[in-house]
Amino acid sequence: MYPKTINNLIECFKKFPGIGEKTAERLALSCLNMDEETIELFTKSLQNSKTNIKNCEKCGNLSEENLCAICKDTSRDKKVLCVVEESKNIVLFEKIGTFNGTYHVLNGLISPLDGINPEDINIASLINRIKEEEIKEVILAVKPTVEGETTALYIRKILEGTDVIISKIAHGIPMGADIDYIDSLTLEIALSERSQIS
Amino acid sequence: MYPKTINNLIECFKKFPGIGEKTAERLALSCLNMDEETIELFTKSLQNSKTNIKNCEKCGNLSEENLCAICKDTSRDKKVLCVVEESKNIVLFEKIGTFNGTYHVLNGLISPLDGINPEDINIASLINRIKEEEIKEVILAVKPTVEGETTALYIRKILEGTDVIISKIAHGIPMGADIDYIDSLTLEIALSERSQIS
Repeated sequence: MYPKTINNLIECFKKFPGIGEKTAERLALSCLNMDEETIELFTKSLQNSKTNIKNCEKCGNLSEENLCAICKDTSRDKKVLCVVEESKNIVLFEKIGTFNGTYHVLNGLISPLDGINPEDINIASLINRIKEEEIKEVILAVKPTVEGETTALYIRKILEGTDVIISKIAHGIPMGADIDYIDSLTLEIALSERSQIS
Repeated sequence: MYPKTINNLIECFKKFPGIGEKTAERLALSCLNMDEETIELFTKSLQNSKTNIKNCEKCGNLSEENLCAICKDTSRDKKVLCVVEESKNIVLFEKIGTFNGTYHVLNGLISPLDGINPEDINIASLINRIKEEEIKEVILAVKPTVEGETTALYIRKILEGTDVIISKIAHGIPMGADIDYIDSLTLEIALSERSQIS
């Protein structure tokens, strides 16, 4: 019952993950109230997202140039690599502001059930970098799921025998969280990975 | 930390109602996985939404032509007008499929507190239509809020003394709802607007 343009907009919005019929309708209708500048910026950015965005040829991060901003930054410690699943994880680490190393984006995790094998994600380029750039430490910052653990284990196995330090980010009780509300798996890990304080 | 194109996309998505920082980020990143056809349809529809969409000059409904599809439809009863607040309400009524009259979109409700007076919404054109098109019945289908009731009252006052039938859609307990969970205002209205069945 809507004009074709609005039906098209609704169809486009429905293609986004987590957007259903009702939300798509709401978003499509709110396009009508947007000012022209926003619409112009929106359409241009959408087009650019297809043409300008590529993966950094070193670390795999999203970038508009061959090397991403972090890889180009000469002030960063190029000997420490933080291995993450996706580019958006980098944003979280950068928000802390204390990590001065560089990253390597796997763009996926090993998941044989989904047909994702080690050669489907950026592991080969990680191993290359570790050798060529004389990396001293690899920090594994993948999520603590079966896929994450498998990927971490695979990387550890490959690097066995080299003198690269491999570390993983700590799992445990989140800061400020109430122990009463923590799931038992987290509590178990928090207990087994306890550290001596005196 | 994202490339400029993605930051721009995030900013654009954040302008939509109900979309916050995190959701905007998620939506912007999923643009990267869309196929070119979708992006092309999306950008074109966005541009068209600014240039092609106007209000039907008769009823105020969203339309790509001077008259909307419903006003152009000769099979519809042009003597019965259903008055709604927004174009999207029409979609709901059309989904039922049993209403064969036409609509009039107010594009707002009277709300003096927000500075919206009768002359700011499509009431004058409604009154004109009622006179010129010899409307027989006006169905008020605005929402049962203070603004909705005010608008309905205003329209009733203006049409007082004419022989147009004014009706309003029924309020009461929704079909299939459990009386236990109905708010007391709805229950009060359901009771006072009871109908004799035998």
